[in-house]
Amino acid sequence: MEEFKKITMEMTQAAGIIARKYYRTGFDIDHKSDLSPVTIADREIEHALRDIIEKARPEDGFLGEEHGTKASKNGLMWVVDPIDGTKSFISGRPSFGTLIGLWEGDTPLMGAIYQPITEELWLGVKNQETTLNTRNIKTNASSDKQKIRIGSTSPSQFKHTPELLSALQEEADFFVWGGDCYLYGMLAFGGLDVVIESGLATYDYAAIPSIVMGANGTASDWNGNAMTLNSEGDFLCCANEKVQAQIIDLIDQHK
Amino acid sequence: MEEFKKITMEMTQAAGIIARKYYRTGFDIDHKSDLSPVTIADREIEHALRDIIEKARPEDGFLGEEHGTKASKNGLMWVVDPIDGTKSFISGRPSFGTLIGLWEGDTPLMGAIYQPITEELWLGVKNQETTLNTRNIKTNASSDKQKIRIGSTSPSQFKHTPELLSALQEEADFFVWGGDCYLYGMLAFGGLDVVIESGLATYDYAAIPSIVMGANGTASDWNGNAMTLNSEGDFLCCANEKVQAQIIDLIDQHK
Repeated sequence: MEEFKKITMEMTQAAGIIARKYYRTGFDIDHKSDLSPVTIADREIEHALRDIIEKARPEDGFLGEEHGTKASKNGLMWVVDPIDGTKSFISGRPSFGTLIGLWEGDTPLMGAIYQPITEELWLGVKNQETTLNTRNIKTNASSDKQKIRIGSTSPSQFKHTPELLSALQEEADFFVWGGDCYLYGMLAFGGLDVVIESGLATYDYAAIPSIVMGANGTASDWNGNAMTLNSEGDFLCCANEKVQAQIIDLIDQHK
Repeated sequence: MEEFKKITMEMTQAAGIIARKYYRTGFDIDHKSDLSPVTIADREIEHALRDIIEKARPEDGFLGEEHGTKASKNGLMWVVDPIDGTKSFISGRPSFGTLIGLWEGDTPLMGAIYQPITEELWLGVKNQETTLNTRNIKTNASSDKQKIRIGSTSPSQFKHTPELLSALQEEADFFVWGGDCYLYGMLAFGGLDVVIESGLATYDYAAIPSIVMGANGTASDWNGNAMTLNSEGDFLCCANEKVQAQIIDLIDQHK
């Protein structure tokens, strides 16, 4: 795993240099269909990261947001979201991040969230404790139903399940909205108890299970099943199994 | 105004030292009714800032979140929110901030947003260009109806006006949720075109008009009237007057 960690560090450094170059520039053009700063940054980062893997690990597969999939010859698959949280990037707030996941078949081996403005790197490795930069972190073990803090990027995550949103708001101590991948990082260090989202693409969630599980949290779909690279994209991370069971109960009642 | 700016710098530095001391600590206690880290930080910051004004400007008034109002003897009133965005502070993301507003009667003279983790200071002074740290900033002058980016802290801001939210979502290129005072800073440098919120307390908005207007934006209530220290708390900031007129039209149709 040390080799993989070293490669991931190299990838996040490369991504950070590019993201910082385009962050808070060109506010007059913004649509993803044009060549906006975020599109340019997205493509440049994915190109750079693909290149690093191609050179260091030519047999490994690669799945990115922009340029499609390179099949794996050895069962290992790198999954990259060059800029998760494009709206935050476009509007200039540091909650976006570069996501890197490494999977062996259906098993997550490693995951990284890198926020290049605050220079925070969450790193989760199978059978190791998750770190935020140099510090080991843990989810909130004492989290219980009376004071659950929930994070979700947008109420549109619940457009097909408005009753679930109401039920969650009733259970919650509070909701924080917005936040993109940063929310999962906050869950991993105990700041939130639940992050719940729907309709995610593979590259949106592939980095997260290693990070959250290595901090003693749970990462699953809305039925409690382990994520794979082919999951539907309804994603639920919780501080511990007790909270997970409570939230899945609510989902079952209101979906 | 140079004296006021110097005092404000002193206040933000004092606030930052305290906020950083309690940020991401004590995740197991969080309710504002207990002595949680955020409550302690809130009180300590307000105490420190009140003390600075008391010593430097004993005739000026002071309105804080925690300790009530000291009347002004000369028409000048400092309005402070020690930690705007307590949920973000509690859950560990750097979008909270210390807000400092200085008013002369119903006229905003100066405003500051200070984010102590990213160390960003927005400073707006009457008849001067707004700055973010050392840089002059401007709202998005070219913003038009086809691609309005809207920020708001939570959908609960629209709990009494769900139709307005739907209409805004229809008009918007996108919404970013969450963000607290940081959203107004993003509007001031051109990252967002509209920030709309409701039910704010005086200390939530008093710092903002100077910042946004000094960057060429508009700051008003939902009817387009200038804010005073006694406004209702329905607050609308826009990149320019054209966008403001469009949003007020929508408000009129859907409130």
